[in-house]
Amino acid sequence: MKVIVQKYGGKSVETIKKMQNIADNIIQKKEEGYNVVVVVSAMGKTTNQLIEMAKTISEHPCKRELDMLMATGEQVSSSLLTMILKEKGYDAVSLTGFQAGIKTKGVHTKNRIVKIDIDNVKKHLEKNKIVVVTGFQGINELGEITTLGRGGSDTTAVALAAKLQCTCEIYTNVEGIYGVDPRFFPNTKKLDYISYEEMMEMASLGSNVMETRAVEIGHKYNIPIYVASSCKNTKGTYIKEFDKNMEQKSITGLSVNDNVLMVTINNVPYSPKNISNIFSKLANQEVNIDMISQTPPNKGHVNISFTTAKENTTIVDKVMKKLKKEICNMEVQNNTDLTKISVVGMGMRNEPGVASKVFKLFAENNINFKQVTTSEISISYTIYASDKQKAINVLCCI
Amino acid sequence: MKVIVQKYGGKSVETIKKMQNIADNIIQKKEEGYNVVVVVSAMGKTTNQLIEMAKTISEHPCKRELDMLMATGEQVSSSLLTMILKEKGYDAVSLTGFQAGIKTKGVHTKNRIVKIDIDNVKKHLEKNKIVVVTGFQGINELGEITTLGRGGSDTTAVALAAKLQCTCEIYTNVEGIYGVDPRFFPNTKKLDYISYEEMMEMASLGSNVMETRAVEIGHKYNIPIYVASSCKNTKGTYIKEFDKNMEQKSITGLSVNDNVLMVTINNVPYSPKNISNIFSKLANQEVNIDMISQTPPNKGHVNISFTTAKENTTIVDKVMKKLKKEICNMEVQNNTDLTKISVVGMGMRNEPGVASKVFKLFAENNINFKQVTTSEISISYTIYASDKQKAINVLCCI
Repeated sequence: MKVIVQKYGGKSVETIKKMQNIADNIIQKKEEGYNVVVVVSAMGKTTNQLIEMAKTISEHPCKRELDMLMATGEQVSSSLLTMILKEKGYDAVSLTGFQAGIKTKGVHTKNRIVKIDIDNVKKHLEKNKIVVVTGFQGINELGEITTLGRGGSDTTAVALAAKLQCTCEIYTNVEGIYGVDPRFFPNTKKLDYISYEEMMEMASLGSNVMETRAVEIGHKYNIPIYVASSCKNTKGTYIKEFDKNMEQKSITGLSVNDNVLMVTINNVPYSPKNISNIFSKLANQEVNIDMISQTPPNKGHVNISFTTAKENTTIVDKVMKKLKKEICNMEVQNNTDLTKISVVGMGMRNEPGVASKVFKLFAENNINFKQVTTSEISISYTIYASDKQKAINVLCCI
Repeated sequence: MKVIVQKYGGKSVETIKKMQNIADNIIQKKEEGYNVVVVVSAMGKTTNQLIEMAKTISEHPCKRELDMLMATGEQVSSSLLTMILKEKGYDAVSLTGFQAGIKTKGVHTKNRIVKIDIDNVKKHLEKNKIVVVTGFQGINELGEITTLGRGGSDTTAVALAAKLQCTCEIYTNVEGIYGVDPRFFPNTKKLDYISYEEMMEMASLGSNVMETRAVEIGHKYNIPIYVASSCKNTKGTYIKEFDKNMEQKSITGLSVNDNVLMVTINNVPYSPKNISNIFSKLANQEVNIDMISQTPPNKGHVNISFTTAKENTTIVDKVMKKLKKEICNMEVQNNTDLTKISVVGMGMRNEPGVASKVFKLFAENNINFKQVTTSEISISYTIYASDKQKAINVLCCI
């Protein structure tokens, strides 16, 4: 059976009119002889609107019920799209997460897929139907409706493709993967190919095209992921296994992330206990820490800086207030006027000079950085937001 | 376990504010020591809005998909109400039709409940939770989401009460059951009690308070149903087994229905084949026929009149067009300027003179009727809409 999975995001199914356009795209694949599984997000801003409704009830609405509420969004879009396909003369059927056999585990609103019972999907495909699956959701071992968190529909799509051993097409509001976000650097080139590793690095570093989890699943099961525009008929980007025929540049992409809160703690008496105390208290509040830097001890004291997403400001402030009672003289400073800029490239594995090249360029162009971290295939810098454009222009020319 | 089922209709859960009010009503029962199962409809006009959306796609949208779409309405209201109960400090859990074990059969959009696996509901009740169940929906043997048709949430509630062997309270936008719709006869009295049989007759004759099916289930399992206002704290009406202590009036209620299309077919050659042909063609198109009358054969021809709901006009016209090709000289007339008025009362079983009393009153007051039908506990008349108020005033004084 020749199968393909296609995923359409919220913007692509924003209105009935837009759904009618993507239906033609789906039908084209069907006419090419494919059995098509479609994964849809909720229409436009539906999910956010549902969350806002819940927030009028409670600052922290029950997450099990939030899942129950949010899951309706994709149920609406999947049934409407199926009606459209049937109206156009193609047999189709919508399936919710539980009907598509998507079993999940974890905390509500942030579940992960642990298993897919694909029989029901296959049964419908064998009857020559287009199967429209609600993205972003599944069912847990208690029979409760769950959701997969941000970008969850991508995860649904790639996981289904992995189970069906086929290509996964992600149709979205961008035309593919770019070296840099075109809003920052209009001359950037759309990539024909990018490796899973590079894409994961880009995704986790803050590029908004796809969630890391989805790319991870693609990588694990070696499923080619094709990212393209849902409305323009232009060539997109394949995310796939790195091979030597792909262009070997030291830098494939640049990831820019403005959602940075940097917290600097001065005057911490130097002891491993103190430092672990700070980060375990943050972890207990589920604050994800990104970059960490520490000065060498000076007169028995160190300064520690870490970055996290801006939405954690309130909770971080609370933790710091508590810590101040335990660590005398400790001083805390928040800085939100920063950007994290990261260069990513498989080539870095073989070409060691990239970091020094960047340092030199930054020095020549008078760009200060507050923090730097490196991975095998990326280097990230926290810089002042005011230097962002200059840094992008400089790095794009490496 | 002391259990009660409460059902709240669309108007009662129209806004978060209204849901907060009914939450207090639910909590009061909980505080009285009851385990409470709540059944909710979709918020306000949600179901109609969803149907309208589907109608922009297709004149006759796929009914399986319509069920999938409509079922989201109650999922939204049940999760929001549950959040409200939890915010007020009471443990609660929402369950969709399939999670509440409601198994259904039949055609999509008009399923009927065939079985309830009550274990999951009971499990949550035993944990002292208020269980909020989505009304109007279930799951069929194929694992597809189904809906129960008009008034389906009442059916869900009474069926759950039957399974739990407890009273079912139906909270709605009326204060109880009246002898006549108060809009037509403001002096009408709210009834303290009405028997299942009378209520079924009233419901099937077009009073809009409750669906016949729900009352039927109550009757079958002898579940007391209490109908009352969701916003006013006034005494409602019990629907229960007829007993001799209930007030024995010959007429308990009057049912008025303006949704009447009367079709008169003149000049039909008298043969059983012709007549069965007419009604089987209508049945094939799922046109529900209400009253039928036929003149005695005259020169080998008869005139036939039947009534049905006005929304069947288009489909009836199509059937008649076909019939004209088969039955030459047949003439068809539609009349929509009619009202069906029915008197209902258990007392009629013992008191034979009611029909003759009505005929006399109609004659004295110059009210013509086009058709009359009788059941054991009711008599129905099709009259001109212009005579409606006069007929109501006359009949209310019997």
